[in-house]
Amino acid sequence: MQTPPTICAISTAQGMGAIAVIRLSGSQAIAITDTVFRSPKAGKMLAAQKANTVHFGTLHDGVKEIDEVVVALFRAPHSFTGEDVVEVSCHGATTIQQQILQLFIQQGVQLAKPGEFTQRAFLNGKMDLSQAEAVADLIAARSEAARRVALQQMRGGFSNELAHLRDRLLWFTSLVELELDFSEEDVEFADRRQLFALVEELDDHLKRLTDSFTLGNAIKNGIPVAIVGHTNAGKSTLLNTLLNEERAIVSDIHGTTRDVIEDTLNIEGITFRFIDTAGIRNTTDEIEAIGIERTYAKIGKATIVLLMLDARDSNEKIHEAVSSVKNKMTSQQKLIVAVNKSDLLTADELAQRFTPDEFSELAGTDAIVPISAKQKTNIQSLTQELMNTVNLGAIDNDEVIVTNARHYEALQQSRNGLQRVKQGLTSGISGDFLSQDIREVLDYLGAITGQISSNEVLGNIFKNFCIGK
Amino acid sequence: MQTPPTICAISTAQGMGAIAVIRLSGSQAIAITDTVFRSPKAGKMLAAQKANTVHFGTLHDGVKEIDEVVVALFRAPHSFTGEDVVEVSCHGATTIQQQILQLFIQQGVQLAKPGEFTQRAFLNGKMDLSQAEAVADLIAARSEAARRVALQQMRGGFSNELAHLRDRLLWFTSLVELELDFSEEDVEFADRRQLFALVEELDDHLKRLTDSFTLGNAIKNGIPVAIVGHTNAGKSTLLNTLLNEERAIVSDIHGTTRDVIEDTLNIEGITFRFIDTAGIRNTTDEIEAIGIERTYAKIGKATIVLLMLDARDSNEKIHEAVSSVKNKMTSQQKLIVAVNKSDLLTADELAQRFTPDEFSELAGTDAIVPISAKQKTNIQSLTQELMNTVNLGAIDNDEVIVTNARHYEALQQSRNGLQRVKQGLTSGISGDFLSQDIREVLDYLGAITGQISSNEVLGNIFKNFCIGK
Repeated sequence: MQTPPTICAISTAQGMGAIAVIRLSGSQAIAITDTVFRSPKAGKMLAAQKANTVHFGTLHDGVKEIDEVVVALFRAPHSFTGEDVVEVSCHGATTIQQQILQLFIQQGVQLAKPGEFTQRAFLNGKMDLSQAEAVADLIAARSEAARRVALQQMRGGFSNELAHLRDRLLWFTSLVELELDFSEEDVEFADRRQLFALVEELDDHLKRLTDSFTLGNAIKNGIPVAIVGHTNAGKSTLLNTLLNEERAIVSDIHGTTRDVIEDTLNIEGITFRFIDTAGIRNTTDEIEAIGIERTYAKIGKATIVLLMLDARDSNEKIHEAVSSVKNKMTSQQKLIVAVNKSDLLTADELAQRFTPDEFSELAGTDAIVPISAKQKTNIQSLTQELMNTVNLGAIDNDEVIVTNARHYEALQQSRNGLQRVKQGLTSGISGDFLSQDIREVLDYLGAITGQISSNEVLGNIFKNFCIGK
Repeated sequence: MQTPPTICAISTAQGMGAIAVIRLSGSQAIAITDTVFRSPKAGKMLAAQKANTVHFGTLHDGVKEIDEVVVALFRAPHSFTGEDVVEVSCHGATTIQQQILQLFIQQGVQLAKPGEFTQRAFLNGKMDLSQAEAVADLIAARSEAARRVALQQMRGGFSNELAHLRDRLLWFTSLVELELDFSEEDVEFADRRQLFALVEELDDHLKRLTDSFTLGNAIKNGIPVAIVGHTNAGKSTLLNTLLNEERAIVSDIHGTTRDVIEDTLNIEGITFRFIDTAGIRNTTDEIEAIGIERTYAKIGKATIVLLMLDARDSNEKIHEAVSSVKNKMTSQQKLIVAVNKSDLLTADELAQRFTPDEFSELAGTDAIVPISAKQKTNIQSLTQELMNTVNLGAIDNDEVIVTNARHYEALQQSRNGLQRVKQGLTSGISGDFLSQDIREVLDYLGAITGQISSNEVLGNIFKNFCIGK
């Protein structure tokens, strides 16, 4: 195999900071840095320095100094990529970062493609594919839960679990395949009942993993919450109240990005994505009807529907709102009802208002919370109810949670394969067909960690990384 | 003196990158990092590691892992601040950066104030004040020239020059002050003619430095260019053409910030700030008159006035434009005339058009350049003329260039003091008065490098730094 070229990229965030880091990786990383680095100690060469050391000096393009820098040296295989790595810390001006990058490019270093450092770490066996994917998830983590799940995956939690399952299946298929070598003799090394039990156990395990994807996806991408209700119910006020309270909490946290279209809110480490909708009302106006159709479409995309009612509305209006929303919901979705402007009613009035007698259709609701969006009353109960819809036990117990759609798909296909193995065992198909079905399952599981992978798959995965990692 | 607290800050740019760096400085930096850092090698403590080494491990808040990190150790006095310094490289998610910062704060580390790391470097004698100020300039450098001048200043170019001048003056004042000890005996250790010659030499030198501030300021803040002309002359087209050509050049340079109000353009390492103005015209309309007054006010703030003419305009209209602009200009300002739409005239017509006979008022003009903003013809000649107005010799010769208004002011006051010394020498004032005047000059020069400084001055300087440096 040809030695891959030495690559470089700016690894810190774009824009001006106090310092920036430019990273090089490849067999020539140290030698090339030596050609442009000057130590205050005459004659000192980086190539002669120990691994895992830092060195102060200047970068020089042969004519002029570019910056004072600190250079960190890592040597293969004990580096992130498994290759020789140099990290140059320079002053954070964009013009300096660019000049240093150009300096290295002039010396024959190639600009790294997105994720190329991590891809090399994978190719050099420093991590498997699901760990490499977790690196990108970790960098993109927007909430505490997302960080936690990504870190666990990066540290090999998921990989170990899969490896264990795969090893057990591999052992069994070896026995089945051994039978094929002795096919004349009609031996049975692999106990079919034991194999069936194992397949069932594996399937249970994979089911638990695929089930965790609902939570994993919510953690990674945020939990979509559709706020619906009549136009006067106070949806926008609630949204502002929720976001303002949060803003007070996160005000010292710089760089928090807000989605352009939706408002996101981190509650205790979980991201909720609030989807504001047009008001619900019966209308004969064609254009308004389109807006309301859109509202219903948004309900379809939400995990939680937050229905806002006005405490003073007529029973008829409330019946209408609840039933029209419930009609559009599936049994998978959670419904939380916020009774707004409840401060305008007395406690007695409120208690008598939303009884099961009066509103039987509210029976299946996950929670009914009286609030005042304007007075900011009881908002915390509402956020608590949002949190209650998320099963955090799995995160708190550090269970493996699947967050990646590619993994989810591979796990689903593994389960389909296991079904075929089970059917085969039940109908007593021959060892070679059985072996083929098991191999298929092994391939699907192997695809997750990259034991089985194509260049195309790898390209698709790493192109979504940020530059410099 | 009390040991200053250990401080920390995020030192890389805000937002998401592949990695981010959090820096700690202070006597407890390594010990505190040890409380939250876990090496894969059991029992390994950072406190026992050598200076200038990097270590892989995880950060842990006692309950959960926060991230995999690489930690670089620097030990006093061989660090940027002169104190023990730890640099933590983590994954670049904002949530991770914040959690690590909070982790250190929980351990008693204080959040660094803007520039506090550099301030400590100054207070610990790692650099003088003008070098410390250059650190901020280097980080903020938006052009190659600004980077170059800041780096030279940071590396001590300016400081050395000042120290040399100050030493010579100090030697002389010592002699004068020695005379005072022998005042009964009427001796003269310090030759007054030699002192006069020295003062003149110093003054020449300081004049060169103060004169360089015009260039220095232009390099640091950009050179303001007012584009003026009649409304139909094509000012906006030219501005777009200039910026588009530049954009093609800088398109791969991320993070380039553009001024909100003005357009800036880097030409060969120099920043030009283009100030678009309302068109010039004679008007009786009151509101329009205000717009035109504003145009004239902008001319006053420009170093270069770029007057745009339409090649097909009547002589009368051109006379009017040139004379109205020239009336508002001072002799310090440069005037470049761009004759736009010159592609609509034949070469002969063009040659006969702008002759000294026809337009005597164009005689003092720095350059007349026929262009077509629309066809992008001859734009490079125009940018070349802009460059010609900047004296780049001083940069190319690596001469010391004053870029800092505080330094400029101190140099001016030093020169005023030298005038008083000269007058005193001429009028033969007594040694004690002479000594007092020289001491004043020494103080002004010392204020630049911080040999003489107050807390207030230091506070003012460092508060304008970015956090993390």
